[in-house]
Amino acid sequence: MNTSDLHDLRDRTRQFARERDWARFHTPKNLAMALSVEVAEVAEHFQWLQSGTGDELDAAGRAAVRHELADVLLYLVQLADKLEVDLHAAAVEKMGLNALKYPPNAARDLAGQPSSD
Amino acid sequence: MNTSDLHDLRDRTRQFARERDWARFHTPKNLAMALSVEVAEVAEHFQWLQSGTGDELDAAGRAAVRHELADVLLYLVQLADKLEVDLHAAAVEKMGLNALKYPPNAARDLAGQPSSD
Amino acid sequence: MNTSDLHDLRDRTRQFARERDWARFHTPKNLAMALSVEVAEVAEHFQWLQSGTGDELDAAGRAAVRHELADVLLYLVQLADKLEVDLHAAAVEKMGLNALKYPPNAARDLAGQPSSD
Amino acid sequence: MNTSDLHDLRDRTRQFARERDWARFHTPKNLAMALSVEVAEVAEHFQWLQSGTGDELDAAGRAAVRHELADVLLYLVQLADKLEVDLHAAAVEKMGLNALKYPPNAARDLAGQPSSD
Repeated sequence: MNTSDLHDLRDRTRQFARERDWARFHTPKNLAMALSVEVAEVAEHFQWLQSGTGDELDAAGRAAVRHELADVLLYLVQLADKLEVDLHAAAVEKMGLNALKYPPNAARDLAGQPSSD
Repeated sequence: MNTSDLHDLRDRTRQFARERDWARFHTPKNLAMALSVEVAEVAEHFQWLQSGTGDELDAAGRAAVRHELADVLLYLVQLADKLEVDLHAAAVEKMGLNALKYPPNAARDLAGQPSSD
Repeated sequence: MNTSDLHDLRDRTRQFARERDWARFHTPKNLAMALSVEVAEVAEHFQWLQSGTGDELDAAGRAAVRHELADVLLYLVQLADKLEVDLHAAAVEKMGLNALKYPPNAARDLAGQPSSD
Repeated sequence: MNTSDLHDLRDRTRQFARERDWARFHTPKNLAMALSVEVAEVAEHFQWLQSGTGDELDAAGRAAVRHELADVLLYLVQLADKLEVDLHAAAVEKMGLNALKYPPNAARDLAGQPSSD
């Protein structure tokens, strides 16, 4: 597509919520909670896997995870929209900060993993 | 931009992980776990709010949330990449299913809210 | 009961897992993931509520939440057992630290809420 | 101790919140959100581990996890208290249902794992 696909989803979700009068439910707090619930539905598919790769998922599991990843993105887009955050710009900016925090030539061990701070 | 900004982030995160040799850590299972941790860091800002709107956040809180939303997107993009899921296509498809499940003219109450099923 | 009910649950979950040969699945990492999934199932019941009180839940919702709280406790007990953590002792100790961090006479505002640090 | 240690923690958390006038913040919805945030802080310690066992944690990590498990229990106890759920009774009841769902002699594979349904 020749436009931002994140803006496209923002516009689609705005219309979807407007047509259903859901704005009153969509406070940032509620959207953050819904986002965490959807992420857990993704995680549920992986919790008992040994290798932790998608190869351990059957076709039904892979199809379900695909839709749950979609739900995560849709709530993330709506939450960012309510908070007036441009997700792509914020992500590029955050990657720049991460690059300073974790230089490519640093020791490549667990300590080099992004923390969640 | 005149390309997909989700594909742009996918390419940026691939390069970032490659430069740090992080592929061995980035199993779908680990990325799903990291995604849930980042989402909780977003939720933490809203957990005690009364109105649940961003207006209750101070400037520092809003800046922090912006970067945590970015972290959520970055892990989501990496997880989708490992699972070979096109996030925009999956989101549009899921919205189509949601539209069938929640017709615009249906009763507009809590029952009309998307479940997490 | 005249014994620790947390130790009682620890013993019951040990036997339950042993009878099903589930020890191989129950690494602390997997149990932590399962715990987060169960907590999300609790949160799901509250995500769209206005008042956020249990009064907004119907009888079926209250019964479901009761069992999901049970699931959270059961995974928490199993995770603590694997990590050799005595939950009651750890909780009493943590409350002591919280009491120092949040003195009763401190300003009683949002800033006085426990952080998640 | 010769009383229920879960009831002991319930009584301690009631007094702690009362002394700080935190009842107004402690709606079930907010407590469910706080619970999910604390669980993520536990999960954060395990997200990049290879074996997923506590052995990969250093002493500081183990001490931190111990306190985060305590935080999870403290919010769980407070949430159950608000919803008038007796956690031990609910857990024993849920284990009875799980025993019917997963008989000891059933096939012992991933399918035998408790789902999060």
